[in-house]
Amino acid sequence: MAQTVTPPRGMRDFLPAEKARREHALGVIRGVYAAHGFDEIETPVMEDSSRLHAGLGGDNEKLAFAVMKRGLGEAELSAAAAAGDPLSLADLGLRYDLTVPLARFYATHRAALPPVFRSIQIAPVWRAERPQKGRYRQFVQCDIDIIGDATPLAELELLTATVATLDALGLAGCTIRLNDRRILAGILAAWGVPAELRERALITVDKLDKIGVDGVAAELVETGAVASPDAVVEALHGLTAADWHLHDGVAPPPAWLDLDAYAELRALREALPGAAIEFDPTLVRGMGYYTGTIFEIAHPEFGYSLGGGGRYDGMIGRFLGQEVPACGFSIGFERIVDLLELRDAGRPRAVVLVHDGAVPAERLLAIKRELVASGVRVRLERRVKNFRALLDRVTADGFDAFASVTAETADASALEFRELGE
Amino acid sequence: MAQTVTPPRGMRDFLPAEKARREHALGVIRGVYAAHGFDEIETPVMEDSSRLHAGLGGDNEKLAFAVMKRGLGEAELSAAAAAGDPLSLADLGLRYDLTVPLARFYATHRAALPPVFRSIQIAPVWRAERPQKGRYRQFVQCDIDIIGDATPLAELELLTATVATLDALGLAGCTIRLNDRRILAGILAAWGVPAELRERALITVDKLDKIGVDGVAAELVETGAVASPDAVVEALHGLTAADWHLHDGVAPPPAWLDLDAYAELRALREALPGAAIEFDPTLVRGMGYYTGTIFEIAHPEFGYSLGGGGRYDGMIGRFLGQEVPACGFSIGFERIVDLLELRDAGRPRAVVLVHDGAVPAERLLAIKRELVASGVRVRLERRVKNFRALLDRVTADGFDAFASVTAETADASALEFRELGE
Repeated sequence: MAQTVTPPRGMRDFLPAEKARREHALGVIRGVYAAHGFDEIETPVMEDSSRLHAGLGGDNEKLAFAVMKRGLGEAELSAAAAAGDPLSLADLGLRYDLTVPLARFYATHRAALPPVFRSIQIAPVWRAERPQKGRYRQFVQCDIDIIGDATPLAELELLTATVATLDALGLAGCTIRLNDRRILAGILAAWGVPAELRERALITVDKLDKIGVDGVAAELVETGAVASPDAVVEALHGLTAADWHLHDGVAPPPAWLDLDAYAELRALREALPGAAIEFDPTLVRGMGYYTGTIFEIAHPEFGYSLGGGGRYDGMIGRFLGQEVPACGFSIGFERIVDLLELRDAGRPRAVVLVHDGAVPAERLLAIKRELVASGVRVRLERRVKNFRALLDRVTADGFDAFASVTAETADASALEFRELGE
Repeated sequence: MAQTVTPPRGMRDFLPAEKARREHALGVIRGVYAAHGFDEIETPVMEDSSRLHAGLGGDNEKLAFAVMKRGLGEAELSAAAAAGDPLSLADLGLRYDLTVPLARFYATHRAALPPVFRSIQIAPVWRAERPQKGRYRQFVQCDIDIIGDATPLAELELLTATVATLDALGLAGCTIRLNDRRILAGILAAWGVPAELRERALITVDKLDKIGVDGVAAELVETGAVASPDAVVEALHGLTAADWHLHDGVAPPPAWLDLDAYAELRALREALPGAAIEFDPTLVRGMGYYTGTIFEIAHPEFGYSLGGGGRYDGMIGRFLGQEVPACGFSIGFERIVDLLELRDAGRPRAVVLVHDGAVPAERLLAIKRELVASGVRVRLERRVKNFRALLDRVTADGFDAFASVTAETADASALEFRELGE
């Protein structure tokens, strides 16, 4: 029954070298976040279907994988067919992000958590997207969130921890772009966009990278947000050149600028010495739930963001029935893991013991145990005719040295190691 | 919209202390297995539905969570209703073990793997079981497998690595029970169980712990495997007292004993000095795919096994269309994690900085950064009226010391730390 065997569409297997690289990066991220006072939690990969489709997930709700009820009978199947409603057959679904589960977790466990709760979630999520290069149906998100702190200290702690993590990963040269939803609101108001069209208009502005200033202006006219493109085109050219000197006490600030929000962003920048932090009044971030500060990590070599987040005060409390301040930052793990060199520092020495059928198994194992106990990683390899190919293979697998074990080898001290890859 | 919020039925959230304990244990297991030459891999949580239901999963296949096809239309729903076949609506499912995915992984990537491939898989699996104490619908399995080695060296490497892992976890006092499917076959033959009833008879013998010698004998009669219970009762009493002296060259060995298999088991025991290893000819292990050695870890304090495995030469090659020797060992992670004390050794010092609104955020963050850079884990806490309660809470959260930051604190060197929990 030989057959084509691949992982499910859009999902990946990780072979040892790639798995090691991923675990190394995750270990660095975990360690830095924990040092900065964040605590890791875990939730099940599935949530109740009704919670995944409660309107908190934006467009991602449509991409959720649905898990069928067990023991479905003909009556339920027929009813679903008659109603044209396949989702009625699902009681669970795979999470499409870590924010909806966090809101549910917080509602479940609030009494057991500190008043200001700093969470780490490092876990896979699933989206039934059309698979394409660099976009997967199962991928890992690394989220930190601060729940219960309404002050800008939350933003500062998130940004500090994130900058430190990128440094620890060796990802130099990153820039953080800052904006605030209140500033976007001021811009749309200045353009005369009617209140009911502003959410839609933000989706258009969010396309600036892809369709450019003229494209955004045209789409705003097309959707009825503005009457003429000219003012918008001029304004957008000004906005993309905006910097930290819009309101320095000398010249009057632009009419569209929300001064409170701008002052808060400037304070964030000043509290993070050494980090490259830009003001970008056109930064939108997709999700509709952001209420204040928004941020994004950019890298000059890449045309996409390496992560982002913001303040979303209205959301975490949704399952709790009350408002809870919250702010979060998500690192795009799949995007950064490929940029990393797996550093050898701290990796234990790894050796191969080559043996043939003549060595008694118990002696071989005793020698292996002896080496392992001394802190060395050991792989046994049976001698093959093409010895050169064997050495090439274990060198590629990251081993440092090899030794031959023969029927005469009494113990580990009798081994003669030869370094590989020299 | 306040509402009852819990994780899905039979699934668990992990709060910080429990998550830390789990990650610590997983880190120990990963480290020891890697030192013993095993390589970690990862597969997607979903596999094609047809592969999960190919007959390799035994009873677990019925417990698989099914993932619905996307974009189901009325025609497909009606057809499923007419056929009474809900599974026709699913193209994917969540894995119920790590063995089926390993067989699929090996078939996909064989060319890129060493001839003897030693894999580590540490990952959650899902089963729609009736939730009950200690049994969950999402739980972590820790599997090691050796693929491509038909010699008992594979069993030896698995057992050595597992014994070392249990030691490293501090789980002293474990016993390993050994048996071989060939020995079980010899016993059933001696009882005169017809060949076609032997698979069913093994399921009965597997219940020995639960229903006792008389119960097993009665069920064997009831299912037609044996004609009278008497011989079986006597034999079972003898079997449960079996030891390593059944065939010592002096007395003739029992007629039911497969001498080759017994000699191999004795060799395994001799090659593992210091480990408590028992021969248990009544050990069955549930899965039907085992072909040779089987083993199980027992602990005197617990009435259930802490893990087990065996040789299953027929299975890994199923998706490849050829036979591939394989042998595996699975640690019952959920069962052992509760037995472990979280050891503090190597944990970085953790301190709390207590502040009030008077400290400028940038100064607070600068002090925090300074401490983090010195290798300390830092949590900020806003001063509250009931200061004693705050200290009790952070002590319970595992922090070692606290210091107050005031408007006068210039930098970290000015902090006066007081140890907690003293």
